[in-house]
Amino acid sequence: MIASYGFACTDANEPLKPWSFERRDLRDDDVRIEITHCGVCHSDIHQARNDWGFAVYPLVPGHEIVGRVTEVGSAVSGFKVGDRVGVGCIVDSCQECAACGEGLEQYCENGMTQTYADTDRRDGSTTYGGYSDQIVVRDKFVLRMPETLDQAAAAPLLCAGITTWSPLRHWKVGKGHKLGVVGLGGLGHMAVKFGVALGAEVTLFTRSPEKEQEARALGATNVVLSTDPKQMEAIAGTLDFVLNTVPNSHDVNPYLAALKRDGAQILVGVITPLDPPVGGANLIMQRKTLAGSLIGGIAETQEMLDFCGEHGITCDIETIKIADINKAFERTMKGDVHYRFVIDMASLAETRQAA
Amino acid sequence: MIASYGFACTDANEPLKPWSFERRDLRDDDVRIEITHCGVCHSDIHQARNDWGFAVYPLVPGHEIVGRVTEVGSAVSGFKVGDRVGVGCIVDSCQECAACGEGLEQYCENGMTQTYADTDRRDGSTTYGGYSDQIVVRDKFVLRMPETLDQAAAAPLLCAGITTWSPLRHWKVGKGHKLGVVGLGGLGHMAVKFGVALGAEVTLFTRSPEKEQEARALGATNVVLSTDPKQMEAIAGTLDFVLNTVPNSHDVNPYLAALKRDGAQILVGVITPLDPPVGGANLIMQRKTLAGSLIGGIAETQEMLDFCGEHGITCDIETIKIADINKAFERTMKGDVHYRFVIDMASLAETRQAA
Repeated sequence: MIASYGFACTDANEPLKPWSFERRDLRDDDVRIEITHCGVCHSDIHQARNDWGFAVYPLVPGHEIVGRVTEVGSAVSGFKVGDRVGVGCIVDSCQECAACGEGLEQYCENGMTQTYADTDRRDGSTTYGGYSDQIVVRDKFVLRMPETLDQAAAAPLLCAGITTWSPLRHWKVGKGHKLGVVGLGGLGHMAVKFGVALGAEVTLFTRSPEKEQEARALGATNVVLSTDPKQMEAIAGTLDFVLNTVPNSHDVNPYLAALKRDGAQILVGVITPLDPPVGGANLIMQRKTLAGSLIGGIAETQEMLDFCGEHGITCDIETIKIADINKAFERTMKGDVHYRFVIDMASLAETRQAA
Repeated sequence: MIASYGFACTDANEPLKPWSFERRDLRDDDVRIEITHCGVCHSDIHQARNDWGFAVYPLVPGHEIVGRVTEVGSAVSGFKVGDRVGVGCIVDSCQECAACGEGLEQYCENGMTQTYADTDRRDGSTTYGGYSDQIVVRDKFVLRMPETLDQAAAAPLLCAGITTWSPLRHWKVGKGHKLGVVGLGGLGHMAVKFGVALGAEVTLFTRSPEKEQEARALGATNVVLSTDPKQMEAIAGTLDFVLNTVPNSHDVNPYLAALKRDGAQILVGVITPLDPPVGGANLIMQRKTLAGSLIGGIAETQEMLDFCGEHGITCDIETIKIADINKAFERTMKGDVHYRFVIDMASLAETRQAA
């Protein structure tokens, strides 16, 4: 077993604390990665606090992982020691179902294996995430990071990036399209960047007037204050797509109203019941669509990373030390982050020395 | 003006009663039709009772109209006296917007003109529907009825038929697809017939065990009792499409669960808020779609009628005399009809003699 060290919570009400634990020895197709950075995703907080009811403790969060390969299994041919690599939300899947066959491991019919708080398919052990010094991952689920990108700022591409990229590509959003993005957080700011990079005209919906300038700086052509009925009325019936990144229950009807006939609103954040309820007429009257999309597959994650390498796209981040992770959780819940915290994992050594 | 006679209600709480009124004289592009049959649609009842809040009284319902041409305007070249014709839910549209340009008059950006309780675009008069002896309609909105079909049984094709046909065609449902149909009423039984005729394997969802045999007789391969959790669990994740014809608010989540990844549930009946609310996760986890569809355009209505002519498809109906219309409304509300009442308009003369 490989002695590892990271931050974990031992229960839904406890803060994250330093924890020493073991990773499995490398299997033939495993890659061992020294983690240099890990993004802080909203779902890390939901899982740490067991908001979804399936947390497993001790829980080491983190699924926006970048680092360097330090060891490879005997059957690994795609990676070598020293490679810059990334790991996202998925570390394994059945590789046999139709979804896996199409490179859509996130929809694996037998259930993908999540990067943390999940059960390894082969040995039944619990998976631990990226708030740690290293990780051991099956080679098929390891991504190549473009060397040209700032690795800290690239880390959130592994979740926030692919979660917005995948639906934009699946629904073929591009030139000539008007795209609305709801929410300017970790996901939303990437949706704006990708929408612009893919050639769409982007409108940001936000409740915060102070986000207008930021959104325009990211490339949004229009900013609509969703709390202003006049602005919402003016945008009604004009958009081809809306990518809704809000992670909590909220009224999606105004964004259906913003769509043209045959337009689609795609949810990537909210997994709770939609309250207030969706109006049937809001779908029927102009043949509109409300859909959902979950992260993205491994092949399209690599496609997205390569696209980001070519276009110099990364996330806007605030780097933190891991000792500040609990504060970062609190600030994230308050929306006080532009737009993603990324842990500089070199700071782990400091906490070890202090202990 | 053309003296006309039909059945109207004068207020939301009044039954339908005989009423003499006037239709406009023919404009250059108008067709005058002697009505032989008119279907009784759920929305006739909603409108008569002002359930949607935009009824206009006196209100003559009826938008599943078939009859014979008795006169044509000077500029009409497509129809001649004696032709078997039909009129559905739409009698005019702007003919200038993108939707009209694509033959999707039901989505006219300037608002289609509905067959009854709406305002004529040219003279501002109120439109009156098919529960009457004749109707005057702009030629572009008149359909050709296949002579080979029983005209009474063909009448509901003009609304129940096209409302289910249009989404099946738009979403390209056909061979190799598994289609679920929710509800076996006027719309649902046509959805089953069309689904089968287009080559799909059809599963009917119903709350009524006694509908199993009927559904199989209509061509459904499977029948699922939606009140039985075991049957619902067995069907989960197996369907490509669900066409949901239920006209009242109900839980659409179980039908999302019945879909495969990337499957679509299309609502054609329920225009109220969806209660209980749609679960965000039910869309996100397998990239599913909830959409809506409204009747259909004139060109695709003609396509559907021609298809029905070639394949000998009509609706299963119960013919009534117009004197029994109020009883028919009550029975329709109770679901006591297989599957559509159609008024034999010859019976109008009897009520006139009695008066």
